[in-house]
Amino acid sequence: MDKKAVRAISPTREEDYPEWYQQVVKLSDMADRSPVRGCMVIKPWGYALWENMVHILDAMFKSTGVKNAYFPLFIPLSFLEKESEHVEGFAKECAVVTHHRLEKGESGGLVPAGVLSEPLVVRPTSETIIGDSFSKWITSYRDLPILINQWANVVRWEMRTRVFLRTSEFLWQEGHTAHASKKEAIDRTYMMLDLYEKFVQDYLAIPVIKGSKTPSERFPGAIDTLCIEAMMQDRKALQVGTSHFLGQNFAKASQIKFQSEDAIEEYAWTTSWGVSTRLIGGIIMAHGDDDGIILPPKVASSHIVLMPIFKKADEKTKVMEYTENLCKELMDKNYFGRSLAVEIDSREIGGTRGWDWIKKGIPIRVEIGMRDIKDNSVFVGRRDKDHKDKKSIRKEEFVSEITNILNEIQNTLFNNALSVRTKNTILIDDNKMFYDFFTPANIENPIIHGGFAMSHWCGNIECESKIKDDLSVTIRCIPFDSIKEKGNCICCGSSSDRRVVFSKAY
Amino acid sequence: MDKKAVRAISPTREEDYPEWYQQVVKLSDMADRSPVRGCMVIKPWGYALWENMVHILDAMFKSTGVKNAYFPLFIPLSFLEKESEHVEGFAKECAVVTHHRLEKGESGGLVPAGVLSEPLVVRPTSETIIGDSFSKWITSYRDLPILINQWANVVRWEMRTRVFLRTSEFLWQEGHTAHASKKEAIDRTYMMLDLYEKFVQDYLAIPVIKGSKTPSERFPGAIDTLCIEAMMQDRKALQVGTSHFLGQNFAKASQIKFQSEDAIEEYAWTTSWGVSTRLIGGIIMAHGDDDGIILPPKVASSHIVLMPIFKKADEKTKVMEYTENLCKELMDKNYFGRSLAVEIDSREIGGTRGWDWIKKGIPIRVEIGMRDIKDNSVFVGRRDKDHKDKKSIRKEEFVSEITNILNEIQNTLFNNALSVRTKNTILIDDNKMFYDFFTPANIENPIIHGGFAMSHWCGNIECESKIKDDLSVTIRCIPFDSIKEKGNCICCGSSSDRRVVFSKAY
Repeated sequence: MDKKAVRAISPTREEDYPEWYQQVVKLSDMADRSPVRGCMVIKPWGYALWENMVHILDAMFKSTGVKNAYFPLFIPLSFLEKESEHVEGFAKECAVVTHHRLEKGESGGLVPAGVLSEPLVVRPTSETIIGDSFSKWITSYRDLPILINQWANVVRWEMRTRVFLRTSEFLWQEGHTAHASKKEAIDRTYMMLDLYEKFVQDYLAIPVIKGSKTPSERFPGAIDTLCIEAMMQDRKALQVGTSHFLGQNFAKASQIKFQSEDAIEEYAWTTSWGVSTRLIGGIIMAHGDDDGIILPPKVASSHIVLMPIFKKADEKTKVMEYTENLCKELMDKNYFGRSLAVEIDSREIGGTRGWDWIKKGIPIRVEIGMRDIKDNSVFVGRRDKDHKDKKSIRKEEFVSEITNILNEIQNTLFNNALSVRTKNTILIDDNKMFYDFFTPANIENPIIHGGFAMSHWCGNIECESKIKDDLSVTIRCIPFDSIKEKGNCICCGSSSDRRVVFSKAY
Repeated sequence: MDKKAVRAISPTREEDYPEWYQQVVKLSDMADRSPVRGCMVIKPWGYALWENMVHILDAMFKSTGVKNAYFPLFIPLSFLEKESEHVEGFAKECAVVTHHRLEKGESGGLVPAGVLSEPLVVRPTSETIIGDSFSKWITSYRDLPILINQWANVVRWEMRTRVFLRTSEFLWQEGHTAHASKKEAIDRTYMMLDLYEKFVQDYLAIPVIKGSKTPSERFPGAIDTLCIEAMMQDRKALQVGTSHFLGQNFAKASQIKFQSEDAIEEYAWTTSWGVSTRLIGGIIMAHGDDDGIILPPKVASSHIVLMPIFKKADEKTKVMEYTENLCKELMDKNYFGRSLAVEIDSREIGGTRGWDWIKKGIPIRVEIGMRDIKDNSVFVGRRDKDHKDKKSIRKEEFVSEITNILNEIQNTLFNNALSVRTKNTILIDDNKMFYDFFTPANIENPIIHGGFAMSHWCGNIECESKIKDDLSVTIRCIPFDSIKEKGNCICCGSSSDRRVVFSKAY
């Protein structure tokens, strides 16, 4: 494409990726920063996307026997302290409620009053408060497994925030299960990771690598953390879902005990797993272009915008009638569990109308004027093609082919994202090449540096830390599908028998 | 019914209504008290009911042009202070976040650290934080109306709490709209009240009275508060939905301004409206009996439970097959926007199995044994009838009639609740009779005291306060459908031209 072409987002991805991201969030009308430090306002266009994601995930969870419930927002400090690694992991980012009313202060303004006897932490995650319920609900092996999910807001007081990717408050789901056997709990941990993989790949059109975290990157208190990792267009990794095998750690902390079939009192085995509004950031960074976001059709806030074009009043009547009829025909169609969502935008604001929808990433734009009506056709633009690449299609054909067109766009997005990952994933066995790969200044063209380095690692935390300190590069995961092969640690040269994924990450 | 019959809930409603309520909540498996003061754990059976309510309400809102969005959990104290009546109304029940991390204290345990420069209030309601967004989103009359809804948790630190009815944290939806004209905002306020009336009557099977609150009972900061009020079985009122016309109060507080068509800068007119998990308490108290909750079929957590009965292994195979086939046939049917929800309970625990489902209020219980299979029939119990009143129905007939049966149950619930209200609503024009009506000790049979007294009120706050102080009775609303008639204030005897609803209330 002509590099000088007019694009809707400035700067472009090449010029300044982080700033491009902020501009896309803003101009796509997905979210606002809020006056509350690090919190976001999710606007209707962004929230509709989240609702569609929730709807699909929720059905997937339920099909595996999971039931939804709701637990308190506040966690007594003493609960959080029950699991020592856990509280250590979250202590630095806890919002703490200390008072339960406001009173006139000496200066006349209101000040916090009514000190709580025990401070309450706004949940950063709910293992300890849900564990308390589990300890009451479970007495016998007959009560197991318990498979619970909660859709909720959580708070982690982050120092550096970015809308959707890292915010003080975010929306998520957290699944919590308790089992009678270790094996069953481990199986559930893997099952939910597979479910996330399917969701992110099939619905969000983002290819992922499945694997285990290294011990230092595990969820605080977990025995094993499994994850899916995706590559963004700046070649950095984004963790888009995690599933934790918690062993008996939280069961011991919360006294989740049961009588086994042999009448022996045992601790339960628990898991937890979650995805969050961070996935929206992933969609933006995996699929967005220099004109804005591109929404994967299967979860798009809306599928199609119809834009009537008219000059005189009598034209308006005819064009609007044709448009509204087409709208009804389209809304009668189903696409992945919901009716096609169609917008009619009849604002008379000239060319900015089309650009508004391009920036918002709607999969299909349809212009309808007098000539289209005469030809019984519509003039169609697809968000996966250049904005000028529009074509006239007979109306009947457009209606009958619409779900195929949406599928094509969905596939294009996945293939493009996969291609970015493939191009930017390389095997590196040489320490200098590894350091060069992650050091822009060392490479002629800094744009093509970085990505996923598939390199050997000895398993030693010192090597992991050194690379992190030197390059801000972490081990994203130990992939499940990595082949056993002999090699030498990229850091210390000791022997290793598998490659791991090294990358910079969000 | 025989008063000595075995009932599942002890005490009965007559014996101790508040304790009956707590026992129903517990034994229906709807919710638990939580270790966090005044907060509740909504268990899967209770949460499924809430999900069904959310699903229906959400579609109703959207059909009127409302879009969902999400705003921060935390409100800076300075925002809350922008509207003086508003902050005064909520100051006594605010959970306040003052710190953003935890540190080792002198005694070794963790203590709050990192003092926030400005305390944050956990939202008790979101007028001020959403108003801040509106002030940024709105510049011209073309941006109006803005019709937003948020599904969220809110916190009001109540001193006396009761699960579902009054909890420190609860789930709700809060609608917030901004309009260019006063009339349009008032119309929206009434439209949403009508929507709530339809939802509560048609789906929850609870009859309501629509009306306006008196000035002293208004939402803090509102010009007018409209409400729907229902009568519970103890003849006390429960406010089950409110819709507020906020005038320009919050627009002035948050600087929500727009350029009118005549290019004049004006303040917008705003509304807000909400219902909450309190509605679940309303369902329990309107429909429950001495055997537990009775779920209105249109929102029931589940519609039907199938209970296979078998003794030998070969019986089990046959009965389970018949049961599973029936389950599939039933799940193919739709009932008010969703597939019939069917449970199979094959636990071999004897008679407690049926009682479990009675207590949980499932509309229909089906027993299936060898004899039923031989007769190609099912043995059906309905939750709106006595637990012993079960009958054999041919399977085909049961399947083809199931939605009619559910409708019958739904109608029975509504009619029973309406009958309770009708019986316990009386016109009172005599001050002594009014005081007697609300004073159990003054009446021979204390069980029939109380209810809704339709009496005249002069409009004076002193009379309203005196009655509240003397009897703990409040004016629930000034009903829209009350007839203009001359009368004398029940308290001071001054002239009055309409009756209002007096009652004790939750």
